[in-house]
Amino acid sequence: MTHDQLRATFAALADPTRRAILQRLLSGEASVAQLAEPFEMTMRAVSKHIGVLEAAGLVTRSRDAQRRPSRIRAEPLAEVDMWLESYRRLWHRRFRRLDERLATLQRKRRAGEKQR
Amino acid sequence: MTHDQLRATFAALADPTRRAILQRLLSGEASVAQLAEPFEMTMRAVSKHIGVLEAAGLVTRSRDAQRRPSRIRAEPLAEVDMWLESYRRLWHRRFRRLDERLATLQRKRRAGEKQR
Repeated sequence: MTHDQLRATFAALADPTRRAILQRLLSGEASVAQLAEPFEMTMRAVSKHIGVLEAAGLVTRSRDAQRRPSRIRAEPLAEVDMWLESYRRLWHRRFRRLDERLATLQRKRRAGEKQR
Repeated sequence: MTHDQLRATFAALADPTRRAILQRLLSGEASVAQLAEPFEMTMRAVSKHIGVLEAAGLVTRSRDAQRRPSRIRAEPLAEVDMWLESYRRLWHRRFRRLDERLATLQRKRRAGEKQR
């Protein structure tokens, strides 16, 4: 179940325009016309992108208001964050190892400078 | 540039088999044969998935060894983590608001119980 949700989330996020739409929605809900403006896209193209975001649960649209503004939903993104958790340890470990290697190099360089 | 990297990363992660391969690589490098085993897939199908992961920079394969083991790369995942940062504030804010609402409800319930 989570697999299918992650699949829909990642597939929706792969498109840069959809990520830009989400970013815009961070500063508040917006109608299709408002979303179409900065992207120089047709309303139809933007509607399609919103449809994909809505199907992935990344966006909700109010049913009542006539302009049907889109609103960002945080849950699928929080799920991506949870999925990343086991990998976070990996890069923290690797970046720490890199830091240690750099520190060793610096110590060696300083020791070399003293000997000169 | 980052857009294209994120596009490749998200597209690669959309597939559950590719996420499972990455998870397996968390416990160490593995050959195609080793990766094919638990998934009950042909070597050819697994090779294709590894190719997509490699193209997205999520996996590297050593050029010298004959079995060419795959190794997970953390960088693209660290980039997804950075991308999530601006959205993290969003769900923390929303979850906090939900907590506050629940706390208010509990206070009201307790006040109601005392009056009885």
